[in-house]
Amino acid sequence: MNTVDIIVAKRDGKKLTEKQIAYMVEGYTRGDIPDYQMSSFLMAICLKGMEREETVALTRIMKNSGDVVDLSAIDGIKVDKHSTGGVGDKTTLIVSPLAAAWGVPVAKMSGRGLGFTGGTVDKLESIPGYQTTIPEEKFFRLVNENGIALIGQTASIAPADKKIYALRDVTGTVENLSLITSSIMSKKLASGSDGILLDVKCGRGAFMKTEEDAVALAEMMVEIGCADGKDTRAVITDMDQPLGCAVGNSLEVREAIDVLKGNGPEDITRLSVILAGLMIHMGGKANSAKEGVEKAQQALDDGRGLEKMKEFVAGQGGDPAVVDEPERLALSEKQLEIKAAADGYVSGLDAMLIGQASQETGAGREKKEDDIDHGAGILLKHKIGDAVSKGDCLCILYGKDEKKLQAAAKRAEKAFTITKEETQPRKLIHQVIGGEIE
Amino acid sequence: MNTVDIIVAKRDGKKLTEKQIAYMVEGYTRGDIPDYQMSSFLMAICLKGMEREETVALTRIMKNSGDVVDLSAIDGIKVDKHSTGGVGDKTTLIVSPLAAAWGVPVAKMSGRGLGFTGGTVDKLESIPGYQTTIPEEKFFRLVNENGIALIGQTASIAPADKKIYALRDVTGTVENLSLITSSIMSKKLASGSDGILLDVKCGRGAFMKTEEDAVALAEMMVEIGCADGKDTRAVITDMDQPLGCAVGNSLEVREAIDVLKGNGPEDITRLSVILAGLMIHMGGKANSAKEGVEKAQQALDDGRGLEKMKEFVAGQGGDPAVVDEPERLALSEKQLEIKAAADGYVSGLDAMLIGQASQETGAGREKKEDDIDHGAGILLKHKIGDAVSKGDCLCILYGKDEKKLQAAAKRAEKAFTITKEETQPRKLIHQVIGGEIE
Repeated sequence: MNTVDIIVAKRDGKKLTEKQIAYMVEGYTRGDIPDYQMSSFLMAICLKGMEREETVALTRIMKNSGDVVDLSAIDGIKVDKHSTGGVGDKTTLIVSPLAAAWGVPVAKMSGRGLGFTGGTVDKLESIPGYQTTIPEEKFFRLVNENGIALIGQTASIAPADKKIYALRDVTGTVENLSLITSSIMSKKLASGSDGILLDVKCGRGAFMKTEEDAVALAEMMVEIGCADGKDTRAVITDMDQPLGCAVGNSLEVREAIDVLKGNGPEDITRLSVILAGLMIHMGGKANSAKEGVEKAQQALDDGRGLEKMKEFVAGQGGDPAVVDEPERLALSEKQLEIKAAADGYVSGLDAMLIGQASQETGAGREKKEDDIDHGAGILLKHKIGDAVSKGDCLCILYGKDEKKLQAAAKRAEKAFTITKEETQPRKLIHQVIGGEIE
Repeated sequence: MNTVDIIVAKRDGKKLTEKQIAYMVEGYTRGDIPDYQMSSFLMAICLKGMEREETVALTRIMKNSGDVVDLSAIDGIKVDKHSTGGVGDKTTLIVSPLAAAWGVPVAKMSGRGLGFTGGTVDKLESIPGYQTTIPEEKFFRLVNENGIALIGQTASIAPADKKIYALRDVTGTVENLSLITSSIMSKKLASGSDGILLDVKCGRGAFMKTEEDAVALAEMMVEIGCADGKDTRAVITDMDQPLGCAVGNSLEVREAIDVLKGNGPEDITRLSVILAGLMIHMGGKANSAKEGVEKAQQALDDGRGLEKMKEFVAGQGGDPAVVDEPERLALSEKQLEIKAAADGYVSGLDAMLIGQASQETGAGREKKEDDIDHGAGILLKHKIGDAVSKGDCLCILYGKDEKKLQAAAKRAEKAFTITKEETQPRKLIHQVIGGEIE
């Protein structure tokens, strides 16, 4: 077998065998195949596509490139929730304690943010003292004792994906269905859970711009998950505007706490309850998704979700007092308000621009080595459908650097479209694949 | 301007501006843009193409990436011959002395082998002592004294192409009209000759598989050459089966000597005489192409071509005795014969497979850093149209490594198609663009 022959085969639109794909992926992961051959191969995949069988093989090879976690030491049906990435998506922080409150074991590994999208690990690290890296033994013990632990994805999980993703990011080869599917599913399948709940975002702030593309991705991922023997379901949700009102790490943890206290924005509250409900059903703690959703709502209403949050924060060295007093979470000292230039209705709020602006405030990183400012970000005061008057505050930006804050404000301002005509709020949940809610 | 944005623009099929192309090519040549970004960009070009204006811009940027040679210190009309590359194409070694014998100054710069195709520099270096790198001053002196010198392309000629060509070779991005055109023409235009004669190959062992594609490439190159003020012509010739019988470096030098002695295979002899004839005409030493061809044949018949070969070999430090005693050229010690499995006629002889098999024997390189074995290669004993009996030797493979030789033999065996029906030899010369032979 020969690297160039395989690249050329894909370039010419041929279907690759599992052996050929393994030769490329394993060779690259070992360092035998250089970046420049992998990147032309990835571009050929982007432009010529992969068939279902190739995607299944690619996912399996990437999954097996590292450790496949054995969660059998944890009792119960383990369900993993994964979002394809967006702006302001802090549902993991809310959904996990709600599901854990009903006895669904949450043994969750998350990633960091890159580009304009956030990552759960960065959000957790804005809690003073919180450890996202703990020994496996302690991770298992916490899940068995508290029913919940949230850590960073270890380097030993799907190292092939780690290396390939970093390359895709800088070679214009991110946007491809098979590559996105294999990247997500290889990690999920290696993480050892029994069920996988996917939140597939669509809209301007997501990889998938249209519902159609998001459904295609969701269907492919559900199919691949089920083929590997996992109960896999997907919810297609809106990411045209940010989810909730907070974008940035401390800000999002604050909002997650608000949601668990019953004071959060309606959209993120609703989506979190539905996702948690599905997890409760998948985890065998409800007889239907509908019952699961009711139970999730109950755990939110009676404060058990909030208690679970305190437990997992404390369990991993974080200061549980932040849950009662979220103002303990640092915000960056400099602030800047954007005001409405005219009366009207917010008819557009571009999640990608808000995500990029948030990155510019210091909340996100351009390169994976970059440091971030946990107290930076954007707090939205109005969302699509809201009526605003000239001079109303549209959003507040937080950051450390005045100049960067001003550049971010310029971008954030462009995210808002205000029109004279009344506008309806956006539909948040488009469809559920692999299961019904009601 | 941003590298990933430009890659994505081409990936999405957009037409690039001269500035964008310059950003990529100049940035890559300087080392600011890494291999892995350039290779995904090249794959995007391969699959999405470039318009005429983009190709013109690319050629100009690459030409101007280094020195543009001034050959005015050499008297006469300088004509450069270039082959688009094939298997067994050693015409440069034959055509150059034939044209020089008639006083056409040959100041030729050549390249190394690429993938399954050979390169003149590698062939020359199989002659003991031959220096392909000499100071410019000596190069000019040799051309003025002997009328001929053959060297390797210097690093100062189109360095952008040098770097990009090496990368294309190992990333499956060789076969694209715009990339091939700009690669060839940037060097030819920077090499300072007054006329350019292109031998554009077509068939299974060429970049261009069909006559139609070869004509498209030839027309594009002739157009770009003429636009730069050069007398540019192209001959479209067959590369469905290898040219001549020898494939591999020492083997091809031996065959070139045979041709100049009048003992070479008919196809390579005929094509060499025609190319030399066109050069003699373009160089102002014949009144028509037809007269040029007659003169070329004369220089072959009377041994002046052979004498010129001795002169240029000796001039550049090579052992001129190899011309009289070609067996002084080393052949690799291990040999393997492929025999005909049945009686019949050779109806197919896949040049690409033979080229790949030759590469496998050690005669070619997979990665740009690889060493080659000058004594390795394949000697064909039968070509298309020949009658063979079961057990006849079809070809002999030479190499150092028994295992590789066996793998190469497997591939070479597949190159031969033997059928019961009598078959005609292939047509060698399809057409001439920018001039007629008769």
